[in-house]
Amino acid sequence: MVISESQPPVEGDATSKKAAKKAAKAAEKQQKKAEHKGATTQNEPAEPDISEGKYGALKMIQSNGENRDRVYVDVKDLHVGLEGKDVWVRARLQTSRGIGKQCFAVLRQNSSTVQLLLRVNEQVSKQMVKFVGNITKESIVDIHATVAKTAAPVESCTVKLVELIGLQVWVVSSAKPQLPLQIEDAARPETDDPEGLKIRVNQDTRLDNRVLDLRTPANQAIFRLEAGVCKLFRDILTDRGFVEIHTPKIISAASEGGANVFTVSYFKSSAYLAQSPQLYKQMAIAADFDKVFTVGAVFRAEDSNTHRHLTEFVGLDLEMSFKHHYHEVLDTIGQTFTDIFRGLQDRYASEIATVGQQFRVEPFKFLDPPLRLEFPQAISMLREAGVSVGEEDDLSTPDEKLLGRLVRAKYDTDFYILDKYPLAVRPFYTMPDPNNPKASNSYDMFMRGEEILSGAQRIHDPDFLTQRAKHHQIDISKIAAYIESFRLGCPPHAGGGIGMERVVMLYLGLDNIRKTSMFPRDPKRVTP
Amino acid sequence: MVISESQPPVEGDATSKKAAKKAAKAAEKQQKKAEHKGATTQNEPAEPDISEGKYGALKMIQSNGENRDRVYVDVKDLHVGLEGKDVWVRARLQTSRGIGKQCFAVLRQNSSTVQLLLRVNEQVSKQMVKFVGNITKESIVDIHATVAKTAAPVESCTVKLVELIGLQVWVVSSAKPQLPLQIEDAARPETDDPEGLKIRVNQDTRLDNRVLDLRTPANQAIFRLEAGVCKLFRDILTDRGFVEIHTPKIISAASEGGANVFTVSYFKSSAYLAQSPQLYKQMAIAADFDKVFTVGAVFRAEDSNTHRHLTEFVGLDLEMSFKHHYHEVLDTIGQTFTDIFRGLQDRYASEIATVGQQFRVEPFKFLDPPLRLEFPQAISMLREAGVSVGEEDDLSTPDEKLLGRLVRAKYDTDFYILDKYPLAVRPFYTMPDPNNPKASNSYDMFMRGEEILSGAQRIHDPDFLTQRAKHHQIDISKIAAYIESFRLGCPPHAGGGIGMERVVMLYLGLDNIRKTSMFPRDPKRVTP
Repeated sequence: MVISESQPPVEGDATSKKAAKKAAKAAEKQQKKAEHKGATTQNEPAEPDISEGKYGALKMIQSNGENRDRVYVDVKDLHVGLEGKDVWVRARLQTSRGIGKQCFAVLRQNSSTVQLLLRVNEQVSKQMVKFVGNITKESIVDIHATVAKTAAPVESCTVKLVELIGLQVWVVSSAKPQLPLQIEDAARPETDDPEGLKIRVNQDTRLDNRVLDLRTPANQAIFRLEAGVCKLFRDILTDRGFVEIHTPKIISAASEGGANVFTVSYFKSSAYLAQSPQLYKQMAIAADFDKVFTVGAVFRAEDSNTHRHLTEFVGLDLEMSFKHHYHEVLDTIGQTFTDIFRGLQDRYASEIATVGQQFRVEPFKFLDPPLRLEFPQAISMLREAGVSVGEEDDLSTPDEKLLGRLVRAKYDTDFYILDKYPLAVRPFYTMPDPNNPKASNSYDMFMRGEEILSGAQRIHDPDFLTQRAKHHQIDISKIAAYIESFRLGCPPHAGGGIGMERVVMLYLGLDNIRKTSMFPRDPKRVTP
Repeated sequence: MVISESQPPVEGDATSKKAAKKAAKAAEKQQKKAEHKGATTQNEPAEPDISEGKYGALKMIQSNGENRDRVYVDVKDLHVGLEGKDVWVRARLQTSRGIGKQCFAVLRQNSSTVQLLLRVNEQVSKQMVKFVGNITKESIVDIHATVAKTAAPVESCTVKLVELIGLQVWVVSSAKPQLPLQIEDAARPETDDPEGLKIRVNQDTRLDNRVLDLRTPANQAIFRLEAGVCKLFRDILTDRGFVEIHTPKIISAASEGGANVFTVSYFKSSAYLAQSPQLYKQMAIAADFDKVFTVGAVFRAEDSNTHRHLTEFVGLDLEMSFKHHYHEVLDTIGQTFTDIFRGLQDRYASEIATVGQQFRVEPFKFLDPPLRLEFPQAISMLREAGVSVGEEDDLSTPDEKLLGRLVRAKYDTDFYILDKYPLAVRPFYTMPDPNNPKASNSYDMFMRGEEILSGAQRIHDPDFLTQRAKHHQIDISKIAAYIESFRLGCPPHAGGGIGMERVVMLYLGLDNIRKTSMFPRDPKRVTP
């Protein structure tokens, strides 16, 4: 088939529009046949069907030019202003039940639902009502219907004031009859009801059938909000002059000492998966990019089967040169968090509310500017609460959680910065505090008592870095390239890395990081 | 050290400001000492130095509170309006040469440069001039200087109308004396001059010393523009209702048949690195996200050592459900490219110009709406040009390049869409053309004659997908999960994947993809 060059089929020119219309007419004729076929496959008796050609299984949409001009209305946009209008809607059939001469169905599109009513009358045959009552749940349907006001608000749908009175019903893609989980079960609210014997769907069943599980309103909202977190992170930093970079995931040497690193076969040799983009962020700083961020996969070969560990997650990383004090960076990161929290509150209120309908979500509290405590203050608070903890010890996870509650009670915030960690518990490249030999210029940040960022001023002086590495008994030959990169002139800098899934989990107050990773990876799961 | 809770050191309160001032004063005193030390390490004779305390090596910046209030001016912001003003600038010393009682230096910040002049006078000692003349290239310096109008424009600097008359010069971070490459060599324009015997830096030397190489004005511009491509891609799609998703890189089965895939050791088992996020994008569509995009690492274990292959690159991927025709998607992708090209033109003109100073860049031409050709038209054009090519053959890389030139000559565009590829050359999941058994609903997109996107309508019907897979002699049991995901109801959809580095390379007309990957990975390179 060689199309003449004198008639390039460029979109939108008059010739092709005319052709399209002609094709559409022909297609309509053809569809009538297909529809007829759809209707007769129902094995109805020979009794004449007054709805013939108005329902059935649509043949596979293969882009043949049919119905290109048809305008569809989104479920969320159905409102009383459309009363009496005939509209086309493409949505999932969430439920459908025939009662005598009527059929009630619920149509779902993302998180929005509307009621569909079919009643046997002079236009709708009982065959058609039966057909619709038999469509499998979760099938995608094209509905032609009249918008009607409801007598009383439909409490079970998000669109409450109107319903659809069906005129045509076509199955675009049918779901199999036996689904591995029911959306209504997966979407059921978590309540405190101790008598609650409601059917719930366990996590592995959800994750094994993630395509279905993701269709719940809460999941639709969670992952839209997650996209929002990334967008806010990037937009806020770009506005502050940061440059986005991309760092390699395949690296030649384990970035943090070799433990917990995945090995990759690399042609005739082997390589590793990066546990952090830190080295590359630092190189970008030494290469004059001044302020950089990167969003990408980070890998940890850690055999931790907890509610908050993944073997692969999305890191929101940033690094920034500063003039004289690392608090220039710490303040920038803190303000970035505050701006993200405010952005979520302002722009994702409906998603937060949707998640709240399934999971009990305590609203996330934060201060502006954020609260910054120093490590010794944390120790004091914990000791006052009866916990015995050393001044140079790192905080245990339970201590961090307790501290989160103490901070919340005292300062009314779910987010805070803990500055000045003991030098002894931080990596060798951490800049020591110049005023206190036991402290360092490093910080963690917490949401609801769980760490979501760890960061520090990095040592930018190669000789001092060597000295600190030796103090940590690190084999200097193995980090020679890292140290060498600071012999090319490097400004003082600091940064940190944020776990995206943790931020979303903790912001929403969810109990498991698998709820905020679309296709989570843990030591026991690499599918789907 | 336990800080009393009654005085939390929250940023910005009056107490801590006072304290900071006090600390700053103390620090100043201390710095004077350090500066003195810096000056005397020059081994000058006992002759009194009138510049003592005004130059030297600054002690390592460790965030001790010194100089926190000092305001710095960016090099690009130096202008005649500041004439006579004393300013602080932190920049790299690009070059420095002492001539008798004077020293001329060039300071560089990102892509901006300014001249610094030091002259022996009643404030500047010859020891100080000598010190500055000896600072190693690429060291980072703090300069206190008076802004002065230049007698004639300084053609060798980006700031031409003013220069800096040095008052204080402090080395913040010194570079080693022997650098593996010189920035001026790495930044030298590529000219057509056949006599050109200018020193160039070869690619491996550049990549081995990427931190230095990235400091050239062209590289500063390339990677800022690359960040722009990602930002435009995401912003344009987000505005069109797309949702950003994150897909796993570690997968349990090779996504495209098992060839060219990297194997990862995964605890006691093994897994693979994803060659494409396609399966996950399609699952997101089946999960009601409607329109999705994802930006992330993509891996190809292909032993191709060419100018345009990487083993790890950044994929800009999108997938979109449509109502009746895959051109709904094709048009969206085409318009996204046009919008990106226009955004680059409008917002990155200065970066494009900077790259053009080193590399000969023909401006990138595009049409709005973009040109769409059908495969048979391409075959005709190639045949007219004397190339023998079959109607059902895929295009070879040289044919694609030639076609790019033919299209450019005929339609005056460097970007076009080639639609309706032969079914035989596309993967099994590609939807066949309903009107032509030899064609398919698939497309590639090209920039300057090189493919930068491949996409198609995917088969969303499980039975037809099974039939097509069998036709391709694919073992159905190995793709059972993929096929099964369409039994849960899935709308018709199409999409495509874009190689980010290729887009930047081809937009700028560069000759090698390693120029647009910050830390490129190929079969022979996994460092730095």
